[in-house]
Amino acid sequence: METTDFPSVETPAVLVDLDIAARNIARYQAYCDEHGIRLRPHIKTHKLPRMAGLQLSAGAVGITCQKLSEADAMTAGTPIDDVLLTYDIVGPAKHAHLRALAERIKLSVVADSGAVVEGLSAAMRDGRQPLTVLVECDTGAHRCGVATPEAAAELALRIDGAPGLRFGGLMTYPPVGGTGAVQAFMTRAKSLIESLGLAVETITSGGSPDMWRAHEAPVVTEYRPGTYVYNDRSLVERGICGFDDCALSVLATVVSVPDPHRAIIDAGSKVLTSDLLGLHGHGHVLGRPDIAVDQLSEEHGRLVSERPVGFAVGDKVRIVPNHACVVSNMLDEVVLVRGEAVIGKEPVAARGKVW
Amino acid sequence: METTDFPSVETPAVLVDLDIAARNIARYQAYCDEHGIRLRPHIKTHKLPRMAGLQLSAGAVGITCQKLSEADAMTAGTPIDDVLLTYDIVGPAKHAHLRALAERIKLSVVADSGAVVEGLSAAMRDGRQPLTVLVECDTGAHRCGVATPEAAAELALRIDGAPGLRFGGLMTYPPVGGTGAVQAFMTRAKSLIESLGLAVETITSGGSPDMWRAHEAPVVTEYRPGTYVYNDRSLVERGICGFDDCALSVLATVVSVPDPHRAIIDAGSKVLTSDLLGLHGHGHVLGRPDIAVDQLSEEHGRLVSERPVGFAVGDKVRIVPNHACVVSNMLDEVVLVRGEAVIGKEPVAARGKVW
Repeated sequence: METTDFPSVETPAVLVDLDIAARNIARYQAYCDEHGIRLRPHIKTHKLPRMAGLQLSAGAVGITCQKLSEADAMTAGTPIDDVLLTYDIVGPAKHAHLRALAERIKLSVVADSGAVVEGLSAAMRDGRQPLTVLVECDTGAHRCGVATPEAAAELALRIDGAPGLRFGGLMTYPPVGGTGAVQAFMTRAKSLIESLGLAVETITSGGSPDMWRAHEAPVVTEYRPGTYVYNDRSLVERGICGFDDCALSVLATVVSVPDPHRAIIDAGSKVLTSDLLGLHGHGHVLGRPDIAVDQLSEEHGRLVSERPVGFAVGDKVRIVPNHACVVSNMLDEVVLVRGEAVIGKEPVAARGKVW
Repeated sequence: METTDFPSVETPAVLVDLDIAARNIARYQAYCDEHGIRLRPHIKTHKLPRMAGLQLSAGAVGITCQKLSEADAMTAGTPIDDVLLTYDIVGPAKHAHLRALAERIKLSVVADSGAVVEGLSAAMRDGRQPLTVLVECDTGAHRCGVATPEAAAELALRIDGAPGLRFGGLMTYPPVGGTGAVQAFMTRAKSLIESLGLAVETITSGGSPDMWRAHEAPVVTEYRPGTYVYNDRSLVERGICGFDDCALSVLATVVSVPDPHRAIIDAGSKVLTSDLLGLHGHGHVLGRPDIAVDQLSEEHGRLVSERPVGFAVGDKVRIVPNHACVVSNMLDEVVLVRGEAVIGKEPVAARGKVW
């Protein structure tokens, strides 16, 4: 992928290459098809109904959202009607919101405590149809989730007995490298729950870093990667893909070259974000592996190299960010391209939807 | 400042306490007045015309913006009409934008190279009145800026000779602790430029971390702090203010307490951001100094403590983020409060304005 100028594009801009995204979608769909895994992409990465449409057309069974407002943005006026909300929904306003959404689309949600189940049940008890609730399990990431298969079984039973709810299965967001732990936890939890007379319809796991190992946890029926659609520097550094597979990049203009070994660009932390994901530096300058993006301030990025950077004021660079999902969320629109051709601008429908 | 519930506020939310902001504004204005320093606040922190209005009413001489689109958002339909744009403006589209803005308001801008000066001159040469351009100087931050007082004098002369431009003075964004370096650089540059027969109207410096030391560089005529209006954890940790002086906080709801020593809240890196500014952890939970916000994912924040966290699902917490300026930029609106009273919502007019 060469750096091109995109003279019609005002910088800084987030570019999304539709050809690369389509290839990423097709490739992972083929993997899931081969292994009999249902693919339910997480839309947090792109936040675009258009991109979710491509994922569904390729064979995805539905989408995953993290927040109610994301689900609204993805389903309002679109054909998307099957959403798994992998989040504990808490509080009266969100319960009312959830219920309205559940009456409009096929919605399922997760819970990891009796308190969350009680809240969901109170919201849904006189609903037209029961809300499907999965038990969130902690398979080692130590974020949300019940800690043991026994606790998962107990909560499954509680969901099954709660008015307005039906038990839908098990969900986890595992740590990187946690495929074996997922298999062990879920196998045991499934067996315990089935011994209680409940069916475990879905076992859903996720995470792009381990997406090519999803089949190593055959108990999992559904996978929810997000980043795979765009890829990013963190996945390249993990060996999951190459820079040629990165659909999202930031186009920036060199505004200052104060020193032969330093150039300043017009993209800072308000575009590239400060997410490091364990990496050094704030992105990869395409075509210039010698350069480090060693410092960001809010609207400036600093490029340094032991070689002369060789840029002039006005030159453009393309940067693959460390973390695509957060960069998507910084601007109101992305610029769709195919190779060097600009296709148009697309509003990021679910940008900033954190409720 | 006690944690209160704000039951009417949907979480996560960015709260801005108008009383605390007004006190911060008044306090620093008094310092500037005492020392004969003109105050030109940077609006990157709040991105709200309303807040800029309070700063101007208190005595600020104008505002500072980093991007043209920020300046547009701050001046469109508002009485604000004096903007210093502390950014190298590059490229034909931005030059046209700049010119339109310069015809509407009192605009000044900076340059740190002949290339930038040439571009500005080409854009302004047949303008109704000359554009004021300051020379950006590198006093140790090694971002933008000419490297020496001699280079500053040379560029001042070039601006003075460029059609459509007038030389307006010197600007720097110093490193933290750089007050002495600013004084030395600017004194020498001023003397060199005056010896060329040019007046140095304005010498402008900035940075909230050193704002109480601004008078230690008496050559500086104008100061451009941003963060001081809200303050944040980074300034508290530097001893610049206390948590009671932090006007901006994030209100979040506990959605999971999977372990007595761990709670998960509904604010992650898409609200609090990953900016560390050299700190450990991602914010300060008001009233709970024992708690660390040790991990953020996009929509989850993890609170851990050696003591039992003692939260239940549904409890609310208030977090002072590491860096207020980037948090302001994450959501479309902030919630204005005075103590425990909610005043209303305010759209963040310049959010995402990075062009």
